[in-house]
Amino acid sequence: MPSTLSVIEPSALAACCSPVTEGIVGDEAATTLARMFKALGDPTRVKLLSMIAAASDNGACACDMTEPVGLSQPTVSHHLKLLVDAGLVTREQRGKWAYYRVAPDVLGSLAAALRPATG
Amino acid sequence: MPSTLSVIEPSALAACCSPVTEGIVGDEAATTLARMFKALGDPTRVKLLSMIAAASDNGACACDMTEPVGLSQPTVSHHLKLLVDAGLVTREQRGKWAYYRVAPDVLGSLAAALRPATG
Repeated sequence: MPSTLSVIEPSALAACCSPVTEGIVGDEAATTLARMFKALGDPTRVKLLSMIAAASDNGACACDMTEPVGLSQPTVSHHLKLLVDAGLVTREQRGKWAYYRVAPDVLGSLAAALRPATG
Repeated sequence: MPSTLSVIEPSALAACCSPVTEGIVGDEAATTLARMFKALGDPTRVKLLSMIAAASDNGACACDMTEPVGLSQPTVSHHLKLLVDAGLVTREQRGKWAYYRVAPDVLGSLAAALRPATG
């Protein structure tokens, strides 16, 4: 069963960026935003995202993320997969370990969608 | 059974605002952020929030929100309660109807938490 069914396509990302503060968002944008927010609806995934976002350009190694969140490697890998599937982070395999980076523009787009309307 | 158990206290809100991009977030902040993101992890609630955020200072009447999302009044009220409980919006009863506003500073704080680190 391919897991790519749940992966957000780049084209959907483009639809996500209209601010929620400027009127009712459309079906596609609401679905994309909700999927990203849902992936962040868990304290462990918020922590993992914060570690990935704070990592150097080399990315954050999965091997470094188990101890800070106090969970097993398989559990951390599961959470990381949900972040990847939601389009929030990207994954790169290098030898034995996977490295994670925040997907380009995603946090900025999410932040922009939440920015309060001015004037 | 009081529903206030799930309500986010203002003191917890203050803990939520450190950017996730500046290092691993603490337990309390991760829990608060995750609860807010979880409340937005549904397309209907994203739409409702967008309508509330775009409403005038008078707030958005529950009576005006059923038709745009195409759901029954009880279902919309349930979704609105989840937004209130997460601390994202406030509710004010005026006569027969409830009016909703975005909670002060909340969207800005959430946006700030997601803003990519610069430099």
